Amino acid sequence: MKDFFYPESVAVVGVSPSPTNLARAIVYHLNEFRYTGKIYLVGPKGGSFMDYPIYPTISHIPEEVDLAAILTPASTLPEIMEMCGHKGIKRLVIESAGFSELGDEGKELEEQLVAIASKYGIRFIGPNCIGVINKENGLATPFMPFSNTFNLGPLSIISQSGGVGGALLNELASENLGFNKFASIGNKLDTDENDLLEYFLEDSGTETAFLYLEGIADGRRLMEIAFRSNKPILVHKSNTSEASTRIARSHTGSLSASEEVVNAAFRQCSIHRVTDMTSTLTAIKAHGLPPMRGNRLAVISRSGGHAVVAADAAAKYSFVLQPFPEEFLRMVEGRLRAGVIRLGNPMDLGDLFDFDLFHQIVRDTLGREDIDGMLVVLNYNGIFFQEDSRNLAGKIKEICLQGQKPVALCLVTTEEEWRLNRRNHPGFPMFTDPEEAAKALAISRDFYHRRNISSFEEAKTIAVDQRKPLAILAEAKTRQAQQLTTVESFEILSNYSIPLASWRQARSSQEAAAQATALGFPVAMKVVGEGFVHKSDAGGVLLDLNSEVEARDGYDRLAAIIQTTESQAKEKVTLVQKMVSQGYEVFVGAKQDPVFGPVILAGLGGVYVEVFGDVAFRVAPVSAAEARKMFAEIRGSQILKGVRGQPPGDLEALIDTVQRISQLVCDLPQIQELDLNPIKVLPKGQGCLVVDCRMVLS
Amino acid sequence: MKDFFYPESVAVVGVSPSPTNLARAIVYHLNEFRYTGKIYLVGPKGGSFMDYPIYPTISHIPEEVDLAAILTPASTLPEIMEMCGHKGIKRLVIESAGFSELGDEGKELEEQLVAIASKYGIRFIGPNCIGVINKENGLATPFMPFSNTFNLGPLSIISQSGGVGGALLNELASENLGFNKFASIGNKLDTDENDLLEYFLEDSGTETAFLYLEGIADGRRLMEIAFRSNKPILVHKSNTSEASTRIARSHTGSLSASEEVVNAAFRQCSIHRVTDMTSTLTAIKAHGLPPMRGNRLAVISRSGGHAVVAADAAAKYSFVLQPFPEEFLRMVEGRLRAGVIRLGNPMDLGDLFDFDLFHQIVRDTLGREDIDGMLVVLNYNGIFFQEDSRNLAGKIKEICLQGQKPVALCLVTTEEEWRLNRRNHPGFPMFTDPEEAAKALAISRDFYHRRNISSFEEAKTIAVDQRKPLAILAEAKTRQAQQLTTVESFEILSNYSIPLASWRQARSSQEAAAQATALGFPVAMKVVGEGFVHKSDAGGVLLDLNSEVEARDGYDRLAAIIQTTESQAKEKVTLVQKMVSQGYEVFVGAKQDPVFGPVILAGLGGVYVEVFGDVAFRVAPVSAAEARKMFAEIRGSQILKGVRGQPPGDLEALIDTVQRISQLVCDLPQIQELDLNPIKVLPKGQGCLVVDCRMVLS
Repeated sequence: MKDFFYPESVAVVGVSPSPTNLARAIVYHLNEFRYTGKIYLVGPKGGSFMDYPIYPTISHIPEEVDLAAILTPASTLPEIMEMCGHKGIKRLVIESAGFSELGDEGKELEEQLVAIASKYGIRFIGPNCIGVINKENGLATPFMPFSNTFNLGPLSIISQSGGVGGALLNELASENLGFNKFASIGNKLDTDENDLLEYFLEDSGTETAFLYLEGIADGRRLMEIAFRSNKPILVHKSNTSEASTRIARSHTGSLSASEEVVNAAFRQCSIHRVTDMTSTLTAIKAHGLPPMRGNRLAVISRSGGHAVVAADAAAKYSFVLQPFPEEFLRMVEGRLRAGVIRLGNPMDLGDLFDFDLFHQIVRDTLGREDIDGMLVVLNYNGIFFQEDSRNLAGKIKEICLQGQKPVALCLVTTEEEWRLNRRNHPGFPMFTDPEEAAKALAISRDFYHRRNISSFEEAKTIAVDQRKPLAILAEAKTRQAQQLTTVESFEILSNYSIPLASWRQARSSQEAAAQATALGFPVAMKVVGEGFVHKSDAGGVLLDLNSEVEARDGYDRLAAIIQTTESQAKEKVTLVQKMVSQGYEVFVGAKQDPVFGPVILAGLGGVYVEVFGDVAFRVAPVSAAEARKMFAEIRGSQILKGVRGQPPGDLEALIDTVQRISQLVCDLPQIQELDLNPIKVLPKGQGCLVVDCRMVLS
Repeated sequence: MKDFFYPESVAVVGVSPSPTNLARAIVYHLNEFRYTGKIYLVGPKGGSFMDYPIYPTISHIPEEVDLAAILTPASTLPEIMEMCGHKGIKRLVIESAGFSELGDEGKELEEQLVAIASKYGIRFIGPNCIGVINKENGLATPFMPFSNTFNLGPLSIISQSGGVGGALLNELASENLGFNKFASIGNKLDTDENDLLEYFLEDSGTETAFLYLEGIADGRRLMEIAFRSNKPILVHKSNTSEASTRIARSHTGSLSASEEVVNAAFRQCSIHRVTDMTSTLTAIKAHGLPPMRGNRLAVISRSGGHAVVAADAAAKYSFVLQPFPEEFLRMVEGRLRAGVIRLGNPMDLGDLFDFDLFHQIVRDTLGREDIDGMLVVLNYNGIFFQEDSRNLAGKIKEICLQGQKPVALCLVTTEEEWRLNRRNHPGFPMFTDPEEAAKALAISRDFYHRRNISSFEEAKTIAVDQRKPLAILAEAKTRQAQQLTTVESFEILSNYSIPLASWRQARSSQEAAAQATALGFPVAMKVVGEGFVHKSDAGGVLLDLNSEVEARDGYDRLAAIIQTTESQAKEKVTLVQKMVSQGYEVFVGAKQDPVFGPVILAGLGGVYVEVFGDVAFRVAPVSAAEARKMFAEIRGSQILKGVRGQPPGDLEALIDTVQRISQLVCDLPQIQELDLNPIKVLPKGQGCLVVDCRMVLS
């Protein structure tokens, strides 16, 4: 990937002398950003632009070329790529649109490009993108116009939309924060976000990565990269609604993923999800300050109202407002002008007009060992104390950078002063509102404490002989089953040592009575065939059968139902199961997500799921720690701990079961959906028992 | 209140020739804002400032004065107010600090001020504020420095903090939106937010009111004003945490209110609560556009990525993306440059370079009867199409204002261009991000559809003879009871015709058996004395007594408990109650809130409240419509409608009961807290029954 960003020569393909020609903007940018390598222009009409000759084809370029940036009609691409191949150009940025985002025709064209690239060992970015920028060497291929008003900063950007990426660049310029590398990936036919992200995380110029994505190329690989990353990764994953899916498909050909799964996956691997420009900038600013290593905050404000607002924000983001030493407070109080303010944390310095003392307070406070960061509100209007306030802002920046602890500085002032301060302090994030400042510090803190994430490798592997499950699944495939029978599902669960409520099969009323007696009354009896999608709805579940007579009678009733629904069935098999009357009802499910692969979900059974949607998701495999976090996340899990005098449930057994299910769905992707519902969680030490199960095949 | 804003002459009290004198800033402002009336300066040292003579006292001013703005040490205020009284000045703005926000001493001083004001018929704003600004006549009394960079706009502002109010003014200047009137109210000793708000709602210059409050003076009056208002009211109520309460008390002497109650009260009367500067500006911009009268939105974007992001935002805020007519789409598609984009709603015009057509699309679309508003994203960088884009922005503004439908225009461009556009279009709100634009349109829509709010007057009044409840409460007061006995509580409920599970009293085991037989088995039996705070915890509740023997035995067990807990009790009274085994468990509570008065809360009983905190609050009295909304708001209320084959509960009976409880707590403020728990809601048509009740006295 590095070769995309550090070529020694670039060919811009598609330039014409016409003033509306878009490829000319690429040439303009290479100059505007002061590209340090050689530039060649290519266009069939020849001529020249900005003193560069325009070669009619790539083959006409007299020297070697490392990278080609191409903006020509889609249909010309195969020929141009062939020429690049012949010329030995191994990196292309294809900015042309008109491919899969338009439908099937474009898809064929894309297949051709992939084939040609593979033939010549070419890697390319795009099509349908605005290309790359590298602030380090001035490489800049966008056809969208930018002035080079950017600093070199520690942020690198991957954007699936040129427009959204460009908007972020504008905002960064206006905040004077800068960036390091930028890549617009469009249809990501060859190079995708994961390829670039992996490179950015190795790249010494990049300290934080931001991605705007309309679709996720390979969720599992993204997670694996994130698990290994010690740099913050921020993602704006858009395309979350039906209407946006429609437009995203025609924009970059992206499909949408399930929101719950995206959120769970990102949390699991510590990717910070942002949702709009405001939250993007806050997160970028958060990581532009030294890290917030703890939770102890000091707030200092030159306005009482902002001290109140800052305290609200500190509470909202769960910071501890560490008290100031009494002696220190008395010292400061003694030096206030009118003595009309009482000091604490937040410290309201509305009555302080001694800027050296303000400086001293910030310096001494940040230096304290029991302070992890500060939020400072500096109010001033552009009339009184201008110079003093500007100088103070600069000194606070120095204190922050020298102390390597964050000071979120809110400048509450006029637009002109704000612009001036930003100009004075390139690369140093500043804020306008205490709410945003507190949020940024919280983002920094939460990233610093992400270490309790557990990667896929930490999920333990249980030794399982897979012959039986594979045989069952193969047999089901042969008979083109859409779901397994309950008996088959139970056999697979047993194979993974997942505890089941004791069960037997019965093929006659006599056998039903005998099995029930053997299990011990009361029993439940159920139909098992794959023809029953919802057994209860079909009347196929009988509970609390208390005698041989009831068991016999029950079998006959179920047999009649089987006769109706599965008239071809050779045998009328029912399941006799020991009733589990105690225990908390929990459900654990799993599904194969098209983007992230096997996903586990869990929650309390019954109304808690239906009414409160109280479910936790994880991408599998999950470790014990991750399974534990799932249940910590569910609000209803308090119930499992025992409320209103009920005994606590056996959470450890449940966590073990979740891990086994996790391995099951990772091992057997043929199972598209799996639903264990209910699982009865017995009192602590007594385990848990799966009562019913459904497995749908892919 | 009008007299505070339209005085024909102003005295500034506290001016000295010293360069650090803060009152001089007031004089500076009156000039800077071009105040149209006469200005007099007052200060004991005399001299002059800005060519105005400084009179040694107010009495020395040779002419009549309508308003005095005072910034002198707190201790001088009584004398100065007396002088104002003598001089006949009826309106004061007291900007001095050092009153109740500092503690008891300051409180005494405040009491003096109130007494003097009352003696002379003076009304004043403050103390501890920065005063008022009226853009219409240039009245401007802040001692905080402002340049007059503000337009005259339709927004008026009430702020309990000068700093936060000033910060908003800066933001409005930077957005070029302007304001009409501004008042900083500080400790609001005489004039509070309600006085000013009431005036602003009548004031012809004000179309939207914004309030920053650290405490609410009189919540019920605020609600009554809001119920009557047809202008949007936006409130940033800060001081929501323990730490902020500490600082707010020392900042403006404000106490905090319960967050749930504030939120419920604001929703109830359609006050829009904002939480920080970002949400404040969005709401102000929302109401700066013509109203969004419906939910049908068209989205047009010059960038595909922003079309995706805008569609996400439209979905988030529940807008309907109305399709474009097919014919119209074909017409536009025919005029795109490269033909590489498919059109829909959102319409991605990334490929359109014909600005007249863009203009036509916006005009024709907003003109459609099936479109209530538009979100338009105009991307451009400051290099190509500058002039065209700037002109288009102006034309879109015209379309919006002429059509009297909102167009939320997002300008995605460089900082310089953004500033230029804002300068070109004073007072017209523009946005930088589709998320903010969609949110603003949603705020406008929700305000326009607020009409389903029901005011206190709409709560029906039930004819109740209050003699018995008053007698019970009087008797309880005499014996200094902290809570009523269950029997007393039940009698009060009965008096309000609130349905109770049938109950009797028993004073002996024989009587218990007889009453149980009369009620019909099974019965419950409970202790009733006021000494039992939690009856169940004390073992004072027996359930499912099924025979005379069990009833007799039960009485004896409870009598023993009564003996232990209430050894002084003359009689050992128990309550015998018919068991209500069916029905959904609901609880309804009420409390007297220090800010809003009687408040009702309701939720499903049991774990739903404890675990999910699923409770709805309302300020009483509540109408039937409002009670219905309470249950619509509770997520668990789905259960009441009948899930998993259960019968729906009698919601109508429950709503009737809530209204009766609402009237009860409004009639009887002596009851500080009331807790009906559980109420059993029987199947539809069968009513509901209160099973237990607790009333705590104030």
